[in-house]
Amino acid sequence: MSEVYANRRSRLREHFNAGGAAAALVTRPANVRYLAAVAPQGSVLLLGQREDLLVCPVPPDDRPTEGRPDEALPVHVTPGGDCAVAAAGLAAGEGAESLAVEEHHLTVARHRALTSVAPRLRLADLGAAVEQLRVVKDEEEISCLRIGAEIADQALGELLESILVGRTERHLALELERRLVDHGADGPAFPTSVATGPNSGRRGHRPTDRRVEEGDFLSVCLGATYRGYRCEIGRTFVIGTSPADWQVELYDLVFAAQRAGRESLAPGTAYRDVDRAVRQVLDSAGCTEALPALTGHGVGLEIDEDPQLAPAAVGKLDACVPVTVEPGVHLPGRGGVRIDDTLVVRPEADGGPELLTITTKELLAL
Amino acid sequence: MSEVYANRRSRLREHFNAGGAAAALVTRPANVRYLAAVAPQGSVLLLGQREDLLVCPVPPDDRPTEGRPDEALPVHVTPGGDCAVAAAGLAAGEGAESLAVEEHHLTVARHRALTSVAPRLRLADLGAAVEQLRVVKDEEEISCLRIGAEIADQALGELLESILVGRTERHLALELERRLVDHGADGPAFPTSVATGPNSGRRGHRPTDRRVEEGDFLSVCLGATYRGYRCEIGRTFVIGTSPADWQVELYDLVFAAQRAGRESLAPGTAYRDVDRAVRQVLDSAGCTEALPALTGHGVGLEIDEDPQLAPAAVGKLDACVPVTVEPGVHLPGRGGVRIDDTLVVRPEADGGPELLTITTKELLAL
Repeated sequence: MSEVYANRRSRLREHFNAGGAAAALVTRPANVRYLAAVAPQGSVLLLGQREDLLVCPVPPDDRPTEGRPDEALPVHVTPGGDCAVAAAGLAAGEGAESLAVEEHHLTVARHRALTSVAPRLRLADLGAAVEQLRVVKDEEEISCLRIGAEIADQALGELLESILVGRTERHLALELERRLVDHGADGPAFPTSVATGPNSGRRGHRPTDRRVEEGDFLSVCLGATYRGYRCEIGRTFVIGTSPADWQVELYDLVFAAQRAGRESLAPGTAYRDVDRAVRQVLDSAGCTEALPALTGHGVGLEIDEDPQLAPAAVGKLDACVPVTVEPGVHLPGRGGVRIDDTLVVRPEADGGPELLTITTKELLAL
Repeated sequence: MSEVYANRRSRLREHFNAGGAAAALVTRPANVRYLAAVAPQGSVLLLGQREDLLVCPVPPDDRPTEGRPDEALPVHVTPGGDCAVAAAGLAAGEGAESLAVEEHHLTVARHRALTSVAPRLRLADLGAAVEQLRVVKDEEEISCLRIGAEIADQALGELLESILVGRTERHLALELERRLVDHGADGPAFPTSVATGPNSGRRGHRPTDRRVEEGDFLSVCLGATYRGYRCEIGRTFVIGTSPADWQVELYDLVFAAQRAGRESLAPGTAYRDVDRAVRQVLDSAGCTEALPALTGHGVGLEIDEDPQLAPAAVGKLDACVPVTVEPGVHLPGRGGVRIDDTLVVRPEADGGPELLTITTKELLAL
């Protein structure tokens, strides 16, 4: 496994060396984890002129539940103070003249502290270089996402078998999270969203004390974290024996939009074209206003990663990029529908997009 | 209620006006919430030359579960893009020449974006001005903390009445979190920590699949969020009929240290003197190595606020400052003890420190 991390670090090194920096400082936790296997709280990764160092506030041994850092990576412990500042001091001590930092993550105050501890070190911008490396996943990473998706499918499936009427959104959300952990998740990938009746279909709805009622739409969005990797699934159901006509219509529309998005996933497709595929279906039904800013996004060590599937996004999909496709429509006062899958972009020759979240998308009446 | 927020904003305005800035931009979410009643995702607060504005990416009505902003505060919606950048543009448009920003929160990249949208605006540092305002709480805030502490006490009390042997740390933690919500919490104040046997006594231990065994120490740390305010309680128990001698000794030591800390809480006491009171007790028993960097901290809209009760902390306690006192000792391979209370500093004449977390600190054998 160690090779994986060393390879990632050397790809990053090529990138910042080409940009003229001798060393780089990675501070964003998910990026540290990607390159070092772990990211103990407060730790940073220094890719120095001569060697790489994981700089931590306490020895990683003292937190055994966080896992072990890549064994090829020496650990430097600096108790007290900011590890980024300590790392800049180490880089300067090594004779580096320039250090690329994550300006999109480092605060102005920390940046200034770096300058003051190492005034001769020229600070450059690493930009989103690590985030870009993270976009295309290897099969090991995809396997973690696949297991996480199975766990989320299981948790959701069990919930559907239980009695729902009369239970609150908050209780259903807590129960789903308990089931995720029961089935081996590290924890939920993000706060589980359960929305009933007029709340249904809202993106990121925070569960309330509203109880499930007959005739409601019930929309659920959850995900499992497995070995650090986060997936996402969203489904909408109706409560009771048979859905109303407007519910069937709305469901069919969102389903058609979501399918159009899924079917557009292929290596080489522009991000914005996936978004457009989804949006066109909703537009044609006059649902433009209700549309969110994006219709999907990458997933991995964070639940919301590059790429963004949005009208102004620039770039094209590659193979082995996991993304969500998650359109929704919410009608104020009535409720709505969201359908959300995690899929991996695969070439046509490999069978096309791989669906990780396999819970049925039929409109179930529960 | 609106007056409360308007008063807070005018105190902040006095501060930055005295520092020479005409306007200020608050970006840290807990600070926005403190000054505006709510902090919808992505929102920022502009204290402009002429008027204050909550700048949001979507209308706050669209997220009813987040509550309503202070009604005296106009809302400006800027869909897409960074609200901080939009706010800087508004400040410049109003004719402000200088804008104080939270350099300890704003990233270098966002700071640069502000400069580029409003090149004539001189960006100054607001520093931790809002965090400093937040240190002393009003009775409304303390009342939220008190209710949160009652909820945490209830959740913990119920857990102690259940069978513990054979259950995993993860399940106990999830059950505690469910009980917090059952009793009316918004949610847990931080990830609930349950540590058994050799894990017990670790600060911030993440629950594992280890099961509770006879003879274990069991240490639990949890807290409730109530109307945004976060409290904290930690207790250690023994599992089985009677604790071993080393367990009693260690417990008595940590208890004595924690009591010393509690008893030192008074208006005018230096932060470091509270820390020293705790540390001296542990030192005298030769437990220095095991000591954490701090022995307590402020709580409020965030679980870890100013002040820090630590050896190098500068400042003195005021009345109405809620803090934790939470020493712990962990013996590698054997386990340990943590005892953690949330208290409000009160003058002697008002009865001295007010204990919010009232669960017994006797060593219970469960």
